Amino acid sequence: MRIEIWSDVVCPWCYIGKRRLEKALGSFPGKEDVEIVWRSFQLDPSAPAIPVETVAESLGRKYGGGVEGGKQMIDRVEAVAAEEGLLFRHHASLRVSTVDAHRVLHLALETGGPELQGRLKEALLAAYFIETENVADHDTLARIAVAAGLDEARVRAVLATDEYADAVEADVREAAALGATGVPFYVVDRKYGISGAQSPEVFADVLEKAWNEAHPKLDLVGGGDADACGPDGCAI
Amino acid sequence: MRIEIWSDVVCPWCYIGKRRLEKALGSFPGKEDVEIVWRSFQLDPSAPAIPVETVAESLGRKYGGGVEGGKQMIDRVEAVAAEEGLLFRHHASLRVSTVDAHRVLHLALETGGPELQGRLKEALLAAYFIETENVADHDTLARIAVAAGLDEARVRAVLATDEYADAVEADVREAAALGATGVPFYVVDRKYGISGAQSPEVFADVLEKAWNEAHPKLDLVGGGDADACGPDGCAI
Repeated sequence: MRIEIWSDVVCPWCYIGKRRLEKALGSFPGKEDVEIVWRSFQLDPSAPAIPVETVAESLGRKYGGGVEGGKQMIDRVEAVAAEEGLLFRHHASLRVSTVDAHRVLHLALETGGPELQGRLKEALLAAYFIETENVADHDTLARIAVAAGLDEARVRAVLATDEYADAVEADVREAAALGATGVPFYVVDRKYGISGAQSPEVFADVLEKAWNEAHPKLDLVGGGDADACGPDGCAI
Repeated sequence: MRIEIWSDVVCPWCYIGKRRLEKALGSFPGKEDVEIVWRSFQLDPSAPAIPVETVAESLGRKYGGGVEGGKQMIDRVEAVAAEEGLLFRHHASLRVSTVDAHRVLHLALETGGPELQGRLKEALLAAYFIETENVADHDTLARIAVAAGLDEARVRAVLATDEYADAVEADVREAAALGATGVPFYVVDRKYGISGAQSPEVFADVLEKAWNEAHPKLDLVGGGDADACGPDGCAI
């Protein structure tokens, strides 16, 4: 089974949804056969590579109320994150571009498969939401990526060029084609879509459903009486 | 889309079914995305590596009527083959083991993918049913395989050992697990089974059905109101 998750590194509900899916997977009997691939989504493509404000400041500016108003808007998501064991400091997160982080996530998938990519995704989310690191900064990205197990020279080479930018764009286009208007957006075996940080129970139900369908009895088509050859000879 | 076809090199309905499937594929809009993999099936595992009789002689011996009786049994399948443009001389085909041919078909798949394997499968069927060649003979197999594009040294090395014998056995076991009692047996996307040389119309229907299911609209699970982040911000 394959779960593709469209997600952004700066999306709080994506990190919360990750924990809820992990909770569902923890008690799912088929978990060894579940492969998770992280897909790129840019919530805020106009966010700068060099930060000029925090998310709280940005929200306060956009919706009014200043930095205090922005912090209040973040309070609820921080409270929900805490219920999942995530001690966000999202009020202090920087508003930054995530395209470079996504390019490195593609490098991780290509060079180390879903396992390496999964480690990097977790590390980037933790860096952004808990450590309030600047995940657009190339030195920061390289440090996080190398700690997750990527090759530093390859990471630096990707960051110095626009490698994987087309893969990031392709992911964003595909999300739209699949009907995703926001993230997290989960696609199970290209069959089921799940929008938003749903409860572990919703994830568990879909996992079980998809699992049963991935191990089907064949549906025999066209009847069993067409000419064929068998152990007792051919229909000749 | 992936079509796996369990088939034997000495199975007349398999060759006829191949033409019927090809007819259906010829007018199928998604044909560029269809991959065909040939799986091994041994109709007559006790057939000798060194031939001692023709198929007509074998049938006459088994069902009575001698070689003439055997030939009459083959008449119908030759007539149906002719309708598909196949000028069988099956009455003169030798009763031989096909395990070595199947081992080389596995080599073709592993080294050259479905395209090379497909060329070899067609060549082996033509050699057996039209040229009445001995497809158990190693020199004959090597000549056919090399003409199809395989590397002669690798073919000879496989024939000199029991390489891929386990793969042949695994295919045979899998056919039984999927419910196939004879061949040709077609499995489309591990979802639909088709038993026997069905008509092009049956194949066309299954191709269309499987195609639509391989390009699904996602089934959105759990409702659309879970917390998420979108272009206008996060639900915070």
